[in-house]
Amino acid sequence: MNQKRTEIKDLGEFGLINRIREKVTLKSKDILKGIGDDAAVFSPSENKKTIVCTDTLTEGVHFDLSYTPLKHLGYKAVVVNLSDVYAMNAQAKYITVSISFSNRFPVEAIDELYEGILLACEMYGVDLIGGDTTSSLSGLTINVTAIGEADEKKITYRGGAKENDLVVITGDVGSAYMGLQILEREKQVFKANDKIQPDLDGFDYILERILKPEARKDIIALLDKMEVVPTSMIDVSDGLASEIIHICKESKAGVDIYEDKLPIDPKTVLTVQDFNLPATTVALNGGEDYELLFTVNQSDYEKIKGNPHLTVIGYIKDENSGMNLVTRDRKSTPLTAQGWDAFIEKS
Amino acid sequence: MNQKRTEIKDLGEFGLINRIREKVTLKSKDILKGIGDDAAVFSPSENKKTIVCTDTLTEGVHFDLSYTPLKHLGYKAVVVNLSDVYAMNAQAKYITVSISFSNRFPVEAIDELYEGILLACEMYGVDLIGGDTTSSLSGLTINVTAIGEADEKKITYRGGAKENDLVVITGDVGSAYMGLQILEREKQVFKANDKIQPDLDGFDYILERILKPEARKDIIALLDKMEVVPTSMIDVSDGLASEIIHICKESKAGVDIYEDKLPIDPKTVLTVQDFNLPATTVALNGGEDYELLFTVNQSDYEKIKGNPHLTVIGYIKDENSGMNLVTRDRKSTPLTAQGWDAFIEKS
Repeated sequence: MNQKRTEIKDLGEFGLINRIREKVTLKSKDILKGIGDDAAVFSPSENKKTIVCTDTLTEGVHFDLSYTPLKHLGYKAVVVNLSDVYAMNAQAKYITVSISFSNRFPVEAIDELYEGILLACEMYGVDLIGGDTTSSLSGLTINVTAIGEADEKKITYRGGAKENDLVVITGDVGSAYMGLQILEREKQVFKANDKIQPDLDGFDYILERILKPEARKDIIALLDKMEVVPTSMIDVSDGLASEIIHICKESKAGVDIYEDKLPIDPKTVLTVQDFNLPATTVALNGGEDYELLFTVNQSDYEKIKGNPHLTVIGYIKDENSGMNLVTRDRKSTPLTAQGWDAFIEKS
Repeated sequence: MNQKRTEIKDLGEFGLINRIREKVTLKSKDILKGIGDDAAVFSPSENKKTIVCTDTLTEGVHFDLSYTPLKHLGYKAVVVNLSDVYAMNAQAKYITVSISFSNRFPVEAIDELYEGILLACEMYGVDLIGGDTTSSLSGLTINVTAIGEADEKKITYRGGAKENDLVVITGDVGSAYMGLQILEREKQVFKANDKIQPDLDGFDYILERILKPEARKDIIALLDKMEVVPTSMIDVSDGLASEIIHICKESKAGVDIYEDKLPIDPKTVLTVQDFNLPATTVALNGGEDYELLFTVNQSDYEKIKGNPHLTVIGYIKDENSGMNLVTRDRKSTPLTAQGWDAFIEKS
């Protein structure tokens, strides 16, 4: 954190908006008006559909500032929204950002947050075109709305999975959850004795997964290149099991997921052992992975097989077969979502 | 408030989303997907530009639940965003709503909030196509993003005012501010003695202005019918003076505003006298009026004159003339924005 502390009140709301506005360089030529009017204006691309989603991160519920750098938080707030756009097999183009924060935060903190927001815009090729800054009585809330576009015939919903389709997951799962466990453990150690510095060595990968996740824009490009249009798709935010259940319910389908196919990173496996947790539960219910889960017709298998980013973890069955996990010893057990549910966990 | 209290945790996040989803009936045929997937999808209209804006209302800063019914709050959260779309001379079409709230709020409270949100959607002909519900450690935050569209040649920015243009305000100003004064006064009376019921008789108009404001969709239709395209436009949220200054700064222009032309409702005048406040200050700096302030070329005067919704309050001058209020005794005094600034007022 910067040493200097400038109070927001010394800048005022309009001063703060101007400060943000000055940092923004628009990339898209389709923008007629960005920050600075009652609303932003852009030209929708011809023959494309518009995609919109919105997501809020709330202090104390979705993040803990004692171990979340503000720059990372800003980056993540954007990424989790872009992930939802990619989960429609669409391209993200624009974001708006609304932040509410108490006077505990100086101007320098808001600068850091926007550094992360603008870095994500840069990395993902999207433009910040509007937003809102307001004060709150306590805490920090960040809301991001992402706008994208896609050809209608490529848009992928949750409800299109068909019997015999293959279930595919990108990357690996469970690592973000283990990153969070490490952070929570070191926080407790630090609370017990603030002379002990957090021991985070060797955990870079899983810490990055929770603190600075990436959205799978690359997969949208890959699918396009492979000429594969998934039959259904969702991003993994609440946990793999919960997302599989969403796809099955919306598609009126059943599923068999194979325990031995779940992609878990070796670093995650070691940490899971260290914490004495069951690896399969972590992989299925960890959440916050921001990987893409999708289904494809079996005829697309030749196109996707062997790709290091993609793992086939099961296949879609008829609705009456239910949603099951096939364990290593080939026993079938009902898949349950113990997904992260903010309301249940925190109340 | 409903007598029954159902805890959110008994419903869960997905249960709550489904409950909201069931209440929504989509009107626009351009929507391919509303609530219930990673993102919403719609077809942008041909040859139209897309307009986007977002605004957050935070408990304790923008509203006080001790005198704000949740249904009114939901209605207002939508209206203040639609107002920004209309201020671009555009039509509002879709909204997304994100709410964060603590477990102090039962399911019935969220139902009431959405009743207001959906009533506003009904009244203004817009569709709720997505959103997000999350918990917070304390308080209620509502973020609305509104999406609209317009012909490019009709879109009206803040920066287009030209010398000699007429400055026009719709409706009347200062009433919302006086409504707030009444509510605050009765709250203090009630706090001092909770046996005294609030005396709100006869204040219906000004109370409605603060608790259940309307956005001037009718003016967009009127301008269209009159074939008038304003040279600049903004909605009055922070106070008339503040908005005039925005237009002048963005247009690199000066202005003369005539004190005796400011439209103040007779009920507001009486309340202003009752509170011993200067009426002109209230009219210029009250805020939250959600009227439209715009400028038109003098050649359009014949079209707008005599319309009961429109009042010409001054004219645009060159930048060097400054921004001035011409008082009743024909003295010129610099116009200052003492507009509502959440950061200054609350910190």
